[in-house]
Amino acid sequence: MEVFGGIEAGGTKFLCGVGTCPEDVEITSFPTSSPDTTVRKAADYIRERAGTSLCAVGIGSFGPIDLDPGSETYGYITSTPKLAWQNYDFAGAVARILEAPVAFDTDVNAAAVAEGCWGAAQDVEDFIYLTVGTGIGGAAVVNGRLVHGLMHPEMGHIRLPHDFAQDPFAGDCPYHNDCLEGLASGSAIRERWKESAHDLPADHSAWVLEAQYLALAVSTWVCTLSPKQIVLGGGVMQRDFLFPMIREQVRRLLNNYIPKREMLEELDKFIVPPQLGNHSGVLGAILLAKELYLQGLD
Amino acid sequence: MEVFGGIEAGGTKFLCGVGTCPEDVEITSFPTSSPDTTVRKAADYIRERAGTSLCAVGIGSFGPIDLDPGSETYGYITSTPKLAWQNYDFAGAVARILEAPVAFDTDVNAAAVAEGCWGAAQDVEDFIYLTVGTGIGGAAVVNGRLVHGLMHPEMGHIRLPHDFAQDPFAGDCPYHNDCLEGLASGSAIRERWKESAHDLPADHSAWVLEAQYLALAVSTWVCTLSPKQIVLGGGVMQRDFLFPMIREQVRRLLNNYIPKREMLEELDKFIVPPQLGNHSGVLGAILLAKELYLQGLD
Repeated sequence: MEVFGGIEAGGTKFLCGVGTCPEDVEITSFPTSSPDTTVRKAADYIRERAGTSLCAVGIGSFGPIDLDPGSETYGYITSTPKLAWQNYDFAGAVARILEAPVAFDTDVNAAAVAEGCWGAAQDVEDFIYLTVGTGIGGAAVVNGRLVHGLMHPEMGHIRLPHDFAQDPFAGDCPYHNDCLEGLASGSAIRERWKESAHDLPADHSAWVLEAQYLALAVSTWVCTLSPKQIVLGGGVMQRDFLFPMIREQVRRLLNNYIPKREMLEELDKFIVPPQLGNHSGVLGAILLAKELYLQGLD
Repeated sequence: MEVFGGIEAGGTKFLCGVGTCPEDVEITSFPTSSPDTTVRKAADYIRERAGTSLCAVGIGSFGPIDLDPGSETYGYITSTPKLAWQNYDFAGAVARILEAPVAFDTDVNAAAVAEGCWGAAQDVEDFIYLTVGTGIGGAAVVNGRLVHGLMHPEMGHIRLPHDFAQDPFAGDCPYHNDCLEGLASGSAIRERWKESAHDLPADHSAWVLEAQYLALAVSTWVCTLSPKQIVLGGGVMQRDFLFPMIREQVRRLLNNYIPKREMLEELDKFIVPPQLGNHSGVLGAILLAKELYLQGLD
């Protein structure tokens, strides 16, 4: 029997899974601590559940990470503000402990492939997956393949119109101040309003602003990539009244410029929530492991 | 002998070429008038030069256009503000007149594939081609293939930070006012400064603003697509002092966030001019024709 391990490595939480698909998976989670302790814990869980059936392990990691197979630091977390994890050989450590091939990608790339295989974007060749949580990350699938490019997308860091009169908050991204993440992440919401995205009441003006920033980002990506679907996930998007608000603003921003039914009449099918809940990242890591294993059999 | 026809259809000018590659091509150009007259003229030129050797014709057209092979209006120019060309069956007309298979794509997509095959982005699997002329259009190549998606990218229409205090010009895009095209196209430059991009002196403050908007767009695309190269072409970019200005602003905007040598030290190889001059569009149209023909032989 072939079994795969998956690790979704977040800055505050790790999710580990063992299995093959959403119907056949066991998942656990624990807080992120030091690299050695956390990775050891993840590996122990995977080894215990998978035993000798383990064929490969996938990692979907917070970043930035080095995905260049030709690089000496391939598989490393690179310039993260989390100091203990800087220049950490993540893929290497997992491969050494579990003695298995390791697929390595970003957390959002992993989540995107899972949503593309089993979730909201099944059989969609061109889509974007965005997670709006403590931070904001995005992944793009184009012509059926993940976008990697030079490094990997860092969609949370695009600049948007920021009307300081309407929103005097300077933004909290340590690199860019008022990029998308600096203005619209869960962390920015908490800093601006002194309340969490989870607790802010649904009629708070925070949400008008939040929908506006996310709609600006969505319309930027519609113009840049012409996706067939945009999946918006992450903790902040669990406030699901945001979906119609974002769609309305996207409609206003694009102003009928894209003469496609999907953009003019079917925005409710175009901008959608994920379907794998909190498990898209870890399931995607399992899927990446599976793909790596199958490539090896070719 | 196999010969291909190429048409680069611009809003003000058509370029037509007959040949196989940059070293073997004849090119002519004439102003865009009514669809029937202009297309007839292009077809006459191609037929005359290619004779019975014509294997296929490529069109790189201004847009928006319908590229969905499953659509009833595939090959049409759709919602252009140029009324005579609205809902015009461009690919169909060329195919009927020349009795040849027709490859159809946007003008910038055509230019991008030519720069990728013979020009500035040779052998680059992930790059962006932008043209900054009367309007602004962009194309992306990801994993070696053009991005099409739902329709095709309309990169000129992304929204950017617009500081009205510094730049009170409202923008001239009829759909979005101050999108990138509305702020930074040749048309916006002329409208704002009452002088053309060609004539404005190099020390005019217009260029600081222009570099800033283009750098904002470039950094948005770096974060979205993680390209390995960005080619900036079009009439406005012929003012080549813009290149170092844009690179400097991109460096400032990204603020060392992308820990890759290409972004930190080699921006002069990352943000580059095209190498096929004004012929990338028409050569790309020829290349698209060639690819269509070769597919047919498979």
